Amino acid sequence: MNRSELIAEIRRKKSFLCVGLDPDMNKIPDCLKGEEDVIFAFNKAIIDATLDYAVAYKPNLAFYEAYGLKGMVSLQKTIDYLRRFNVFTIADAKRGDIGNTSLKYAQAYLDPAGDFNFDAITVAPYMGEDSVKPFLQVPDKWVVLLALTSNPGARDFQNLEITGGATTDGMGAARTTGLEKHLYEQVLRTSGQWGDDQNMMYVVGATRAEFLSDVRRIVPKHFLLVPGVGAQGGSLEEVCRYGLNDEVGLLINASRSILYAGKGADFAEAARAEAARMQQQMQPYVR
Amino acid sequence: MNRSELIAEIRRKKSFLCVGLDPDMNKIPDCLKGEEDVIFAFNKAIIDATLDYAVAYKPNLAFYEAYGLKGMVSLQKTIDYLRRFNVFTIADAKRGDIGNTSLKYAQAYLDPAGDFNFDAITVAPYMGEDSVKPFLQVPDKWVVLLALTSNPGARDFQNLEITGGATTDGMGAARTTGLEKHLYEQVLRTSGQWGDDQNMMYVVGATRAEFLSDVRRIVPKHFLLVPGVGAQGGSLEEVCRYGLNDEVGLLINASRSILYAGKGADFAEAARAEAARMQQQMQPYVR
Repeated sequence: MNRSELIAEIRRKKSFLCVGLDPDMNKIPDCLKGEEDVIFAFNKAIIDATLDYAVAYKPNLAFYEAYGLKGMVSLQKTIDYLRRFNVFTIADAKRGDIGNTSLKYAQAYLDPAGDFNFDAITVAPYMGEDSVKPFLQVPDKWVVLLALTSNPGARDFQNLEITGGATTDGMGAARTTGLEKHLYEQVLRTSGQWGDDQNMMYVVGATRAEFLSDVRRIVPKHFLLVPGVGAQGGSLEEVCRYGLNDEVGLLINASRSILYAGKGADFAEAARAEAARMQQQMQPYVR
Repeated sequence: MNRSELIAEIRRKKSFLCVGLDPDMNKIPDCLKGEEDVIFAFNKAIIDATLDYAVAYKPNLAFYEAYGLKGMVSLQKTIDYLRRFNVFTIADAKRGDIGNTSLKYAQAYLDPAGDFNFDAITVAPYMGEDSVKPFLQVPDKWVVLLALTSNPGARDFQNLEITGGATTDGMGAARTTGLEKHLYEQVLRTSGQWGDDQNMMYVVGATRAEFLSDVRRIVPKHFLLVPGVGAQGGSLEEVCRYGLNDEVGLLINASRSILYAGKGADFAEAARAEAARMQQQMQPYVR
C-alpha cells in the first residue's frame, strides 16, 4: 500500500488507528483455548471486529517468536488473512544488521513471494545507513524507523545531547549538521537522506508527545507511527495537537487496550467498542 | 554455558573462534541441493567439520527468517544439533523492544524449554535499559550488546560525539557521566550498570580494531564478540593486540570465509582447513 492509498483509506474510514496484534497466551480469553491455532483464532476475531475502524495492523513479532515454530505459523496465517483486506500491514520487528544481512530481513518480511508479505517493517537505527537501505530498495514497501520510543529506556541514549562538530576518529567523520541537539533528532536528519516520505515513517512514542513538535520541525511530511496511547498512558489529543500534518501523517497504535478490552466470550465485541471509541476521537482530526 | 566453562573450552581447544552460521542458498554447494533440508544439511556438515577448532557458533537469524517458516525449521534443527556439543551458542538476532516485549524475545531465544534454546542473544541498545534487562534476567544466559559494529553505517550514529552534560528534557535527564566521548562508549558505560561480565558481552567490529583499546578501558573484563575478520577485512592480529585480556576475553567470528571456503563437494574439508588455520593463528594468544 503506497502513501496516497493509505491516506485515502484514512479519509474513508475517518480513522488513523493501527491495531497492534500482540497475542499473549496468558491474556487470550479461555473461550478460545480449544482452537487448534489459538493465536490465529484470536487475531482473526480481533481483525474482523475492528476492521471498520482501523486502517493498519501491526503484529509485534516477539509475541509470535516467543511461541517458537508454532508462533511463526500463526504469524504467517495472520499476515495472509490481513492481505485479504485493504489495510496497511506493519511487521513490528525492530530489525537491522549489516547491509547483506538486512537484505535477508527485507526478503523475510517485505517480499511479495515470501511467507510474510508485509507493507512495512520497523527498523532500529543504531547500525546506520547500510543497515536501513536494503529495506528501502524493495518497491512499494516501507521502513518505519525507530526515532523516539515510548519506553522509559528511551532516555538512556535517544535523548543524549550530541555535539554539532564532526568526530575525528580516523575512520571518516560522523556526519553531523550542526543543527541537531539530541540523538533522536540526528537519527531523523541523517535518515532523511536515505529515503523520503513515500517509503519511510518514524516511530515516535505518545508518552513523550511534547517532543512531537520538535520531530515535526525535522520531518514535517512523514507519517509517524505513534505507540503508547492506551496501556502506556499517552494522550490521543496531545499526539494530534503536536503531530498532525495536512495529510494527517499519523498512525496511532493501540494494542493491549483493544486486544484485552474484554476478558470473556465478549472479547471481540469489547475490542470493537474500544476501536470505535478511538475512531470517534480521531474523526474530527481527519480532513 | 557460563563464563568459566567458556574459558575452559577456549583453553582446551586453544581457540576463541566463533563460526557464524549464515546459510545463503545462492552459495551453498550444489551437491547438497537434493537434501530435504538443505540449510540444516549444510550447517550440520559445517559444524561437524569445524567442531575441533571452534568454541562458539552464531547463526544469524536473518538468514533463516529469509526462508520463511521453512528457514525457522532449519534454525530449530541447527540449535538442537549444536546443543549436543559443549559449545557456546549465540542467536545473532539484534533484537530489542519495550520491556514486556523484550521479555517475549528472551522467551523465544533463551528459554531452555523453547524451540530455540541458545546461550546468548545479540541485542541492539537504542531503546535503553528496559529493552535489555529482560534478557539478563534469564539464569545462566547472556546478552551480547551491540557497541561498535563492523559495517560502514556504524559511523552514522555510534561514533557521534556526545556531550558530558545531562539533558534537560523535562522527562528525566539522560544519564551521562562526563567521561564519555562517543555514543558507543556511552553505551558501554551505561549498560555496565545493567549486567556484568558474567552475563554480558559486547559486539565490537574487527574492521575498527584501533577502537578496541578505548573499549578495553571501559570494559576490561567483558568478553567481546568480534565480527569482521575475514570477508569484511579485519585483522586477527590487530584484534588480539588491542582486545585480549588475561582470560582471553575475545570471541572472533568468521562466517563467509569459513562457510564458503570451498564451492564444491569438498566444501566441508575446505571449511575445516580454514577453521584450523584460524585456530593456529589464535593458539599463541591463549594462555
